[in-house]
Amino acid sequence: MCQLLGMNCNVPTDICFSFAGFHHRGGRTDEHADGWGIAFYEGPGCRVYLDTKPAAESPVATLVKSYPIRSTNVIAHIRKATVGHVALENTHPFVREMWGRYWTFAHNGTVGEVTSRTLAGRFRPVGRTDSEHAFCVLLERLQARFPDGDPGIDPVRAEVAIIAAELAPLGTFNFLLSDGRALFAHCATRLSYLVRKAPFATAHLVDEDYAVDFSELTTPEDKVAVIATQPLTDNESWTTMTPGQFLTFVEGEPSG
Amino acid sequence: MCQLLGMNCNVPTDICFSFAGFHHRGGRTDEHADGWGIAFYEGPGCRVYLDTKPAAESPVATLVKSYPIRSTNVIAHIRKATVGHVALENTHPFVREMWGRYWTFAHNGTVGEVTSRTLAGRFRPVGRTDSEHAFCVLLERLQARFPDGDPGIDPVRAEVAIIAAELAPLGTFNFLLSDGRALFAHCATRLSYLVRKAPFATAHLVDEDYAVDFSELTTPEDKVAVIATQPLTDNESWTTMTPGQFLTFVEGEPSG
Repeated sequence: MCQLLGMNCNVPTDICFSFAGFHHRGGRTDEHADGWGIAFYEGPGCRVYLDTKPAAESPVATLVKSYPIRSTNVIAHIRKATVGHVALENTHPFVREMWGRYWTFAHNGTVGEVTSRTLAGRFRPVGRTDSEHAFCVLLERLQARFPDGDPGIDPVRAEVAIIAAELAPLGTFNFLLSDGRALFAHCATRLSYLVRKAPFATAHLVDEDYAVDFSELTTPEDKVAVIATQPLTDNESWTTMTPGQFLTFVEGEPSG
Repeated sequence: MCQLLGMNCNVPTDICFSFAGFHHRGGRTDEHADGWGIAFYEGPGCRVYLDTKPAAESPVATLVKSYPIRSTNVIAHIRKATVGHVALENTHPFVREMWGRYWTFAHNGTVGEVTSRTLAGRFRPVGRTDSEHAFCVLLERLQARFPDGDPGIDPVRAEVAIIAAELAPLGTFNFLLSDGRALFAHCATRLSYLVRKAPFATAHLVDEDYAVDFSELTTPEDKVAVIATQPLTDNESWTTMTPGQFLTFVEGEPSG
């Protein structure tokens, strides 16, 4: 299984602290050493940095850890190859444009049977993972449901929840999805989150002996939601999502 | 106007040398300081590193210069903003998936009127540049011409040439386009190329006093085509493309 990390905020925030802990799981504190990737939204723009090296050794990870890219939505993924070999085209997050927005998707688990679902062609996988195929199914379904274009966050949220519940029985379908406005999180087996907001305090990483006092870096209005396969800090209160739970994070606030 | 750099090879090759010279044009040896980007193909996979900082100062450029990513097709772009402000969503190269392949596109010049062309919706711009709109028009036309999917390089080449000739009168349309197999280059005003092959020799950069002896790094079968707005080296023989010329590079060899 892979490791997921997401961030959703009401003000552009860098993910250096969380990523500093997270990237160790790619080959150092965990065995997921088959490449990794991260997507950052800045307004409607999106940058995705992928690498096939283990995150713990990747020069690109060193960059991401030290270069404070301020973003309102981030999705990161460390891969343990199950379906599809170690290759760039199999590396999450995957990106597609729909309705004039970039959509990004990362998945933890396998839903192998999804590949038997025929795709109409508007979205096609480039690599060989069941994850990318599932992403294409999801987008195709959204496109078919809203043929006139972007219906706004609420209708999208409702439809993604329906599609997630439909695909979930095919296997293990923990995923993070974003269109740059919202971060959608579906828990099949393991996903936790927290919301950092005022009064901010010091957070200490699990994967490395490193702490940051967020009260020095934030304003009282800031809200930063962090979602991860396993909690990243050992002195904060993480909420464990329940199997089948689907949450939408907007401006740092989760809603069911 | 912006700066373009492309590479097409018969064996995966890193672009560190060419990029070392090229990135100085983003704010040091030239004025194009409004962000930059680079796309690398590795098999069907594609990684695109974008940054809104000037290339000459960008931490991401420092990474690309020093991390030898071996690729058979590369497209890089340094932006001088003309249409659309400095923002990630306006940064080239742009990427879209079509026919299960990633297509990448970078443009030098302006073709402002292209934005009056209505798009059917299969490909839509996320940012506000005429360049991304032109890319969407180009893909939409390819998709409409070959509705059954990928027809192979030769039919695509013929159709891209037709579309390029049709859009060129709208302004200045120097562009590089790739689907990971071929690199298509259209010259409106300024584009040069060379093919490095045996016997390899030493190449010396224009933008920095730095030379590499390629005979030490290559095998006799290697063929590496480099395409750039202006020649990157001062001791090699670059071919200047003529206005309206369209070339397709496959495995390091150009054809008209």
